[in-house]
Amino acid sequence: MKILILGGDGYLGWPTSMDLASKGHEVLAVDNYSRRTIAMQTSSEALIPTPNLEERARIFKEKTGETINISIGDLKDFRFIEDHIKTFQPDAVVHYAEQPSAPYSLKGYEEAHYTLKNNLEVTHNLIWAILKNKPECHIVKLGTMGEYGCPNIDIEEGWLEIEHKGRKDKFLFPRAAGSLYHTTKVLDTDLLWFYVRTYDLKVTDLMQGPVYGLSTTESDLDERLLPNFHYDDIFGTVVNRFLVQAVAGVPLTVYGKGGQVRGYLNLKDTLQCVDLAINNPAGERELKIYNQLTETFSVNQLAEKVRKAGELLGINVEVKSIPNPRREPEDHYYNPSNTGLLDLGLRPHFMTPEVLADMMEIVQRHKKNISINKIYPRVKWS
Amino acid sequence: MKILILGGDGYLGWPTSMDLASKGHEVLAVDNYSRRTIAMQTSSEALIPTPNLEERARIFKEKTGETINISIGDLKDFRFIEDHIKTFQPDAVVHYAEQPSAPYSLKGYEEAHYTLKNNLEVTHNLIWAILKNKPECHIVKLGTMGEYGCPNIDIEEGWLEIEHKGRKDKFLFPRAAGSLYHTTKVLDTDLLWFYVRTYDLKVTDLMQGPVYGLSTTESDLDERLLPNFHYDDIFGTVVNRFLVQAVAGVPLTVYGKGGQVRGYLNLKDTLQCVDLAINNPAGERELKIYNQLTETFSVNQLAEKVRKAGELLGINVEVKSIPNPRREPEDHYYNPSNTGLLDLGLRPHFMTPEVLADMMEIVQRHKKNISINKIYPRVKWS
Repeated sequence: MKILILGGDGYLGWPTSMDLASKGHEVLAVDNYSRRTIAMQTSSEALIPTPNLEERARIFKEKTGETINISIGDLKDFRFIEDHIKTFQPDAVVHYAEQPSAPYSLKGYEEAHYTLKNNLEVTHNLIWAILKNKPECHIVKLGTMGEYGCPNIDIEEGWLEIEHKGRKDKFLFPRAAGSLYHTTKVLDTDLLWFYVRTYDLKVTDLMQGPVYGLSTTESDLDERLLPNFHYDDIFGTVVNRFLVQAVAGVPLTVYGKGGQVRGYLNLKDTLQCVDLAINNPAGERELKIYNQLTETFSVNQLAEKVRKAGELLGINVEVKSIPNPRREPEDHYYNPSNTGLLDLGLRPHFMTPEVLADMMEIVQRHKKNISINKIYPRVKWS
Repeated sequence: MKILILGGDGYLGWPTSMDLASKGHEVLAVDNYSRRTIAMQTSSEALIPTPNLEERARIFKEKTGETINISIGDLKDFRFIEDHIKTFQPDAVVHYAEQPSAPYSLKGYEEAHYTLKNNLEVTHNLIWAILKNKPECHIVKLGTMGEYGCPNIDIEEGWLEIEHKGRKDKFLFPRAAGSLYHTTKVLDTDLLWFYVRTYDLKVTDLMQGPVYGLSTTESDLDERLLPNFHYDDIFGTVVNRFLVQAVAGVPLTVYGKGGQVRGYLNLKDTLQCVDLAINNPAGERELKIYNQLTETFSVNQLAEKVRKAGELLGINVEVKSIPNPRREPEDHYYNPSNTGLLDLGLRPHFMTPEVLADMMEIVQRHKKNISINKIYPRVKWS
C-alpha cells in the first residue's frame, strides 16, 4: 500500500514510518519540525538527541535496505498537502500532524491560538485534499482518550446509544476534554464526522491513551533510530517524567492526590493498532472509532510501578505530592471500553517493572543530559 | 450597561444594536462587512439596499437622538478585538460575528476554509481578549438550533442527563449539524464550554432557529433602518425565498418532500431573547444554553402559510417541489424544548398570515430589484 504519514518526525510518526516501511509499504513521511521548534523555544529538548528526519531515513535505509520518503513542509499550506495527495495517491493517510502538548496549548494566547489554528486547519486541509484528489483514501486519525475527559459513566468506543423519553438514537460519545490541545481533538472528531456523513469520507479515529516505550523492532537496530524521549513539563508524559526523576535520584512528583486514572499503552501496541486500522479500513460514510489503550491505572499506581522498576536496577525511588497545576479531578470514576482493537487481533504488551527498567537503562545512558528543572510544571491550567 | 455587538452590520446585529441603544445601553457595534463582501462576490446582494453601518448609525441618531458607536475592523486580528475590550470595558458582548451562510460554507475549499477559520478564530480571540482584559464580562453567543441536527429523541435545552449501565452524568446535548457553517457553531460551543469550565468564563449560548421579519420598533421609523433582506440561495432563508417567489409570481420551490421541520422565531423575539440573556447573565463557570425558537413547522406548512398570506394581498401562490440540493432528512422526528426563555418572560410573536403579508408588502415595494435566478440553488451539498 501507499501510505502517507503526517507528522512523521514525531514520537509516534517516526516509529510508525519505520514499521510500515519494514512491512513492505511505500511510505512518505511529512513534517514541518513544529515540535522540534517549540521544544527549542521552550527549552524542552528531548533527552536523547535525534537526527533530523532525512538523516533518520538515511540511517534506516543503511540498516534495513528499506526506503522512507521524506518531505518537509507545512500542512497548513493547502497547496503543499494537495500536491502530495495528487502525486503520491496514497491508499491511507496516518494523521499525527498536530501540536501535541497540553501545557503548551494553555501557556498564553499565542500558544493557544497556534494550537487551535494548526490542528484544525491541518485536519481540514487534509479532508479537502482527499475529497478533491483521492476520495477513496482511508484517513487514520490519531485522536485521544482525553477527548472524553472523566465522565461518571462507562466510556464506550466512540459512540453511545441513548434512550430518552421512550425514544432512541445513536450519537458520538459525549466529549469534554481537560486541555485546549485535547479540545482541538474533540473539534477534529466533530469536523471529520461532518465530512464523513455528508461527503462519504472514510475515517478511522483512534482514541489513544498516553503511550510509553522506546523499543520497537526497528528502533532497537540503532540508537539513532530511537523515538523522541521528552521528560519536560511541555512534551513529557508522566511516565517519562517519573523514569527520569528515578534515574536522577529525585522524588517522583505526583500532581495532587494522584488518583487520576488513565488508559496506557506500549509504543509497540500503537504500531499494532495503526497497522490493524490500516488493514481494516472504514467503509464509505463510516467513522470507525476505537479506544486505543491496553490497561488503566492511577498516577499513584504508576509511581509504584516505577518504584518497583527502580528496585530491579538497585535504585531507591521516592514519591512526593506537589500542588496540581491542572484543573482536573484527582479521584474519579474511569471505565473505558477497549474491545474493538483486541477483537481485530491486538496482542497487548503490558507495563511490567521489566519494561520500565529497560527504559530506565536507556535513560541512564543519557543521564548527563538531564536538566531536572525542566520537569517541574511551568504552566498553570486556568 | 456597556454592550459590545460583534457583527453589528448583520441581519440581527443591526436591529440588536438599535434595540439596546434605545433601551439606554452604551452600544459599540463592530463589523468588517464580510457579509456584504461575500454578497457582492456571489451576486447575492440584499433586496433592499442598506446604507453602510456608519450611515445607518447617523440616520438612527437623527431619528431617535440615540448613539450607536461604530468600529470597522476584522476580529480575526487579536489586537483589534483586544483593544476594544481594553478601552470599552463591556459588561456584555453579543457575538454574531460569523460567516452565516450554510451554502457558502459548502461551495468549495476556499469558502469552507474561510468559514472554519473566521468563525473559530473570532470566537477564540474574543475568549482570550475577555480572559485577559475583562474576565467578568458576559458573552452572549449566537449558536443555532442547527447544531443539534434532527435527532430521533427530544431536543433538550443544551444539556442532557444520561443514564448508562446504572450510572449517571450530565453532558452537552449531542450535536450533529447539517452543514459546515452549522458545524463551526458546534465547534464554538465545544470551545466555549472548555473555557467556561476551565477558566471561569461566563457564557450564554443561544441555539436559535431560522429568524424571519423586518419590523422592529426602530426599523419601522425609516426604511433605511431596515435589517438586510436576503432572498438568494447564499444568504436567503426559506421564508424570504418563498415571500419573494410569491411576489414575483413564480412557484415556491420546496426542496424534496418538504417535510423538513425547523423551529422559527420572529425578529422581534430575537431582540427579546438577547435582552433577556443580557439581563440574566450566566454565573462564573456556567454555560447557559437556551433553545431560541417559538414554533415549529415543516417547509410544506411554511409554504401553506405563505399561500394564505398571498390570499390576503390577492396574490395567487403556487408551490412546486425541486430536487433537494442538500443532504438532509426530508421527513423526520423533531421535538425541541424551548421553555427556558419563556420562563424568563419571552412573549412570542407568531408567524401569522398577516405578519407574512406585511413582509410581502415591503418586498412588493422593491419588486423591481428581484433577480429570480438568484433564488435557485447554485451549491450542492456533498
